[in-house]
Amino acid sequence: MVPRTAATQDDLRRHNRARLLRRLHEGGPASRSDLVAYSGLNRSTVGVLVSELAEVGLVREVAGTAGQVGRPSLMVQPAAESAVVVAFDLRVELTVVALVGLGGTVLWRKEQRHKRASYTPEAAVRSIIALTGQALAHASPTASWVGLGVGVPGTVDHLDGRVRLAPNLGWVDVPLGERIREAVIAKYGFAPTIAVSNDADLGAVSEHVRGVGAHNRNLIYLSGEVGVGGGLIIDGRPMSGAGGYGGEVGHMVVNPDGVVCRCGARGCWETEIGRDAITRAAGMGDDQCEVADVIAAASAGNRRAQAAIESVGEWLGIGLANLVNLFNPEVIVLGGHLRLLFPLVSGTVYRRVHYALPAVREQVRVEVPALNGDSTLLGAAETAFEDLLSDPLDVLARAPHAVAS
Amino acid sequence: MVPRTAATQDDLRRHNRARLLRRLHEGGPASRSDLVAYSGLNRSTVGVLVSELAEVGLVREVAGTAGQVGRPSLMVQPAAESAVVVAFDLRVELTVVALVGLGGTVLWRKEQRHKRASYTPEAAVRSIIALTGQALAHASPTASWVGLGVGVPGTVDHLDGRVRLAPNLGWVDVPLGERIREAVIAKYGFAPTIAVSNDADLGAVSEHVRGVGAHNRNLIYLSGEVGVGGGLIIDGRPMSGAGGYGGEVGHMVVNPDGVVCRCGARGCWETEIGRDAITRAAGMGDDQCEVADVIAAASAGNRRAQAAIESVGEWLGIGLANLVNLFNPEVIVLGGHLRLLFPLVSGTVYRRVHYALPAVREQVRVEVPALNGDSTLLGAAETAFEDLLSDPLDVLARAPHAVAS
Repeated sequence: MVPRTAATQDDLRRHNRARLLRRLHEGGPASRSDLVAYSGLNRSTVGVLVSELAEVGLVREVAGTAGQVGRPSLMVQPAAESAVVVAFDLRVELTVVALVGLGGTVLWRKEQRHKRASYTPEAAVRSIIALTGQALAHASPTASWVGLGVGVPGTVDHLDGRVRLAPNLGWVDVPLGERIREAVIAKYGFAPTIAVSNDADLGAVSEHVRGVGAHNRNLIYLSGEVGVGGGLIIDGRPMSGAGGYGGEVGHMVVNPDGVVCRCGARGCWETEIGRDAITRAAGMGDDQCEVADVIAAASAGNRRAQAAIESVGEWLGIGLANLVNLFNPEVIVLGGHLRLLFPLVSGTVYRRVHYALPAVREQVRVEVPALNGDSTLLGAAETAFEDLLSDPLDVLARAPHAVAS
Repeated sequence: MVPRTAATQDDLRRHNRARLLRRLHEGGPASRSDLVAYSGLNRSTVGVLVSELAEVGLVREVAGTAGQVGRPSLMVQPAAESAVVVAFDLRVELTVVALVGLGGTVLWRKEQRHKRASYTPEAAVRSIIALTGQALAHASPTASWVGLGVGVPGTVDHLDGRVRLAPNLGWVDVPLGERIREAVIAKYGFAPTIAVSNDADLGAVSEHVRGVGAHNRNLIYLSGEVGVGGGLIIDGRPMSGAGGYGGEVGHMVVNPDGVVCRCGARGCWETEIGRDAITRAAGMGDDQCEVADVIAAASAGNRRAQAAIESVGEWLGIGLANLVNLFNPEVIVLGGHLRLLFPLVSGTVYRRVHYALPAVREQVRVEVPALNGDSTLLGAAETAFEDLLSDPLDVLARAPHAVAS
């Protein structure tokens, strides 16, 4: 978060202002004393920085509700309606969109189904633009629109938002970030921050910022949809790797004698715990069958469905033990269909995870997401807010007020 | 490297001074203009900071040798003899020790064999103290002794230098850092920075700072001795995980139908590519047999040895493909016996790595260490220098001159 080249007084002031706003955005309301304790700055510096943020409307000071004796202290809170982003979770057959305000407040949310076959990149961009218009119509007239974030089930270059491969959408090498930017500029005459990211990476971000891993510096989020993706927070920061493609946990080979994966390798983890593996093992393998259907069949007494779920538990545990040994995380968050399966197989999973080395296994928790099905969506909002949080006054000065479509 | 709480002018000045010294230590001599370009600071600030460092002897300015027209420019260089560390690479049957000066200059180096059975933690501490005395006897009388770094083949808590488990030494839960500190204080009346780390983590550090990954931000180093360890650099920083135990690549399960590992799991990578796996597969499995012996037998025409090496190539490639998918590194460095094996099986390895996803495999190189057998040793030196590089003047003020034993 600190620019490596921070070197001047101005840099320092900008840096400290950004730190305070980020604290309020991520941690919620705080008194000036809290901010002094948090930042290590002196009281008068905190006062000046808070005033600067209040002047542009990003924060406001209100009477606190803490149960203290005496005068209620003023609480500084992020003004949700002052700066907004539009966030998208693009899934194989569903788009989820939300208008999210500063502080992570969801101001409006909508789901829209689409047909996998006709959901081309062009169709996706058209849909994103239309839904953005609907979202902004729910923003305050004085809100500044500072970002648009998108989660995609595929490998994405985090620098330019190019989708390298989204196999279940059939997208190859799509400059999605650029296309969205062009379409936004064509409609609004400007573009805010536009961030396109892998869906699991975004799940990791939101569960780290305000979910089950809020107090942890090392977190792994697994998305389970048709495939299995992974997002990683290492030492408090998203792991990107050389090109933003790290965390491809679904293609970790765990069973070299297993079946051939769509990636060409044999025995990838995804071939054992992905949706198709489960429905196939349950004897329910068609494109419309969901993991929830297998779970329902199992609870109705279907032996084959029960066996399929038990097998997923074994392989889930083997793979998790690998991730625990490799990354030594505090928490692993099971998203997507793994969120539904985990409660049914947690005993099997823990028995397998127990094979990880003692020093690492005693430090890890396995959890389901705190943000339920919205981890990716809210992570997309976080990446869209990132520029504002890095330099609030400059970004706000450049962002026009939200325009209803 | 930047303290997250950097907030005052003093912090900033300390930070910038440290950045310049780190640049000179890691990158070698530079002109003042180079330092201006590197740091983004203005010329007069760089001048003041360089003078402060020169005043305490950490750097000196000498006539440059660059082939430029006109006046030769002055080069600022780290003064190797001004500040020294003692570095250790503790192996199962060998200790390597070095005296290393600022800038990474090896001033003295020695190897000493020991018997595995009698190499208890107590014996190790006695040996470290005796060898430290020998090393410091080779330091300049005016040198400041600022650190002592140790690499251990096991899991180590990076905060307090406690060895949780070094299976091939038979060490369990040994407070090695503390014991060394006590012994150093008993002998010298003070202790410099004492850093105990996992051997592969240190290999990663040195190959990143001044080896084959000097220009890469994501690197994986594999140590191959009796076991197989891993050290990771993620986005320019060592990955530690929740407790400093990350990177246990040897216990990634790649063959669930394989043999039981000493960790209790079945089919760990180490059971396929570790020393014992190779010597056993070659039919040469006794404790004295080294991988080099298997390689010699293979090149003399021994079919079983040849087959063992080919099998290692397959499993090495399968595991590397997993690491490439998970971490998206720019470079993987094969240390220890893998360094000897790789040239013989690189074709097989690359064929397997080709199963990694296209976006990640096209970004990775597989290399042998630039520092040959000394990656861990020189990484131990880097961790011992870390405090000096974070705050040069304060640390130097506290460090007495090196005392010959």
